[in-house]
Amino acid sequence: MTNTMSLHQYLGLMLLLTLALSLPLWTQAAEPLPSWADGPVKQSIIEFVQAVTDQNSKDFVKPAERIAVFDNDGTLWSEQPMYCQVLFALDEVQRMAPEHPEWKTEQPFKAVLENDHKALSESGVDGLLKIIGATHTGITTEAFMDNAKTWLSQARHPKTGKPYTEMIFQPMLEMLGYLHSQDFKTYIVSGGDTAFVRAFAEQVYGIPPERVIGTTFTTQFQFEEGEPSILRTPKLAHSNDGPGKPESIDAVIGRRPILAFGNSDGDLQMLQWTAAGPGKRLIGLVHHTDTKREWAYDRQSGIGRLDKALDEAKTRGWTIVDMAPDWRRIYPFDAVTPGQVQQESATLDRNERLSHHATLKAKEPVR
Amino acid sequence: MTNTMSLHQYLGLMLLLTLALSLPLWTQAAEPLPSWADGPVKQSIIEFVQAVTDQNSKDFVKPAERIAVFDNDGTLWSEQPMYCQVLFALDEVQRMAPEHPEWKTEQPFKAVLENDHKALSESGVDGLLKIIGATHTGITTEAFMDNAKTWLSQARHPKTGKPYTEMIFQPMLEMLGYLHSQDFKTYIVSGGDTAFVRAFAEQVYGIPPERVIGTTFTTQFQFEEGEPSILRTPKLAHSNDGPGKPESIDAVIGRRPILAFGNSDGDLQMLQWTAAGPGKRLIGLVHHTDTKREWAYDRQSGIGRLDKALDEAKTRGWTIVDMAPDWRRIYPFDAVTPGQVQQESATLDRNERLSHHATLKAKEPVR
Repeated sequence: MTNTMSLHQYLGLMLLLTLALSLPLWTQAAEPLPSWADGPVKQSIIEFVQAVTDQNSKDFVKPAERIAVFDNDGTLWSEQPMYCQVLFALDEVQRMAPEHPEWKTEQPFKAVLENDHKALSESGVDGLLKIIGATHTGITTEAFMDNAKTWLSQARHPKTGKPYTEMIFQPMLEMLGYLHSQDFKTYIVSGGDTAFVRAFAEQVYGIPPERVIGTTFTTQFQFEEGEPSILRTPKLAHSNDGPGKPESIDAVIGRRPILAFGNSDGDLQMLQWTAAGPGKRLIGLVHHTDTKREWAYDRQSGIGRLDKALDEAKTRGWTIVDMAPDWRRIYPFDAVTPGQVQQESATLDRNERLSHHATLKAKEPVR
Repeated sequence: MTNTMSLHQYLGLMLLLTLALSLPLWTQAAEPLPSWADGPVKQSIIEFVQAVTDQNSKDFVKPAERIAVFDNDGTLWSEQPMYCQVLFALDEVQRMAPEHPEWKTEQPFKAVLENDHKALSESGVDGLLKIIGATHTGITTEAFMDNAKTWLSQARHPKTGKPYTEMIFQPMLEMLGYLHSQDFKTYIVSGGDTAFVRAFAEQVYGIPPERVIGTTFTTQFQFEEGEPSILRTPKLAHSNDGPGKPESIDAVIGRRPILAFGNSDGDLQMLQWTAAGPGKRLIGLVHHTDTKREWAYDRQSGIGRLDKALDEAKTRGWTIVDMAPDWRRIYPFDAVTPGQVQQESATLDRNERLSHHATLKAKEPVR
């Protein structure tokens, strides 16, 4: 390039630059799942979506019936070394302790405040339920969601130092975006608390509150001083794990999904319920096999145990995502696996990617 | 018209015919609520929708947050002389009687089978709950919805002789269609059984199952002989009346509506909850004031009592629909009130209108 470039040369250069800059966008439209390695798993997703959205296909499904359900912990984001919601509850005990001097001597709160893992572990499920009750109920839904949002904006994962909302799976974000672009209604069907998941699902996954189904507490409508509110009581209304998942799908959606993804035995009944419907189905399991970039665990894990569902997936020929080879990138902040680099938009930073994902009905697959 | 018409004349005639036939469609687009009489009530609906959908308005609301909730019985269809679902339950007792010889001597079933109004009335709420339990539970959701659909296709209203699904309010259908065309998500929030309302809501109102919220029974996921199913148990999970309505809106939608319509005191808390949110709101009550075309009832009625909510609507300036003057037509099969006739498409028969309403996201207001 010289200082004596003619107008003609200049315009030619601009045209080339424009073409070059538009290439990544074009590539995205042609390639819906860029973080998925080419192979039978990626192909099974694309073939399923094409079959049910092609009006001339015998497997065509009307948009209103394109219901897709996803587990959250371990399926859309990481769940190791501990469910995010449990870490939130433990931190909330610390935050609320000044208002509860009695916790200094009362288990399991004493154990949390003293960081006494042994005593906390000994308090078992009952202890955990007490902690959940104290931190998740007795306040309005709005106040609880505010607490969750505040915590999520400040908390960092012990291993990566990243916010939990960034430890979401880039390939699954792309899958959600792909499905949204094809007029699917995606739902999160989580064992976690519905309001906790709603506190981040729209911003992080582009899934609005009405498409989040989780564990719920009984609530109470109150009307005090002319101001109505919804109070969360400690009484469990619905435990959304195992059989609770198809039960809540029936209660809330009222229509059987045609696609279901999970990662643990707690998702088995949801997968069975989805698989047993008429017509073409896509049933998938995320198998955590990547010790280096994420974690590797299945049949022996206390968190996200995958045992019976893995056997059934193999018997029935469900799609099993082998995370290490099948995902070129795990998190949005990860680099793509060397040697597999395709067209990447290096200028699109993480925040742009996240806000891009949050677009409810992306007309193009998200990246 | 002669046999010697030239090609030129013929084409000219075709053009005129085409213009004439397209006129009603054009009129619909310009006039969203044709069965509503001109006046402040109709105006309040149109002004609200325009305010929240105009990007330049200070009251603009993003499409994702355009949530509108409607009671069903008495708000979207007639509820006199008895709730449709109760009549369904009574007819189901008759249908199921051959499988239940014990009912011949067991109340309240004996009273139903013998058409003994006095004994039935004496069995009270407990009796009604037994009848609901026997006819609504102990079967799968799919089987229950099949029963409801079969009954709805055969049953006729005692006064009009019409199917219940035709005794829907034409003005409310137009309002739903208008809201759908403006990217609102409309929900039914009914005291009725969720699955019962889902059995007709999509076909009749264009509201899909996931946007129907009602009273629910606890269900049980079952897996027998390789076939999963959802069994409805007799245990009530949620009573969706009064305070139960905002509670279920919070649980299922997770976002406060900006528009709510009801017709009775059972809707009061839903209206209060909606009204108390920030920003512009539309809160409406259907007041049954038409003895001739429908029914007239309010403070003294056993069905759909409207007393406290009417007082509160007046105090707070909510929109009160005075059915007799405000609705030019009640049902789709009604003629328009004489003297108020506007452009009507006489060639569009009832079935066409109903199927038109069922279009989920009508691009034009439904008629």
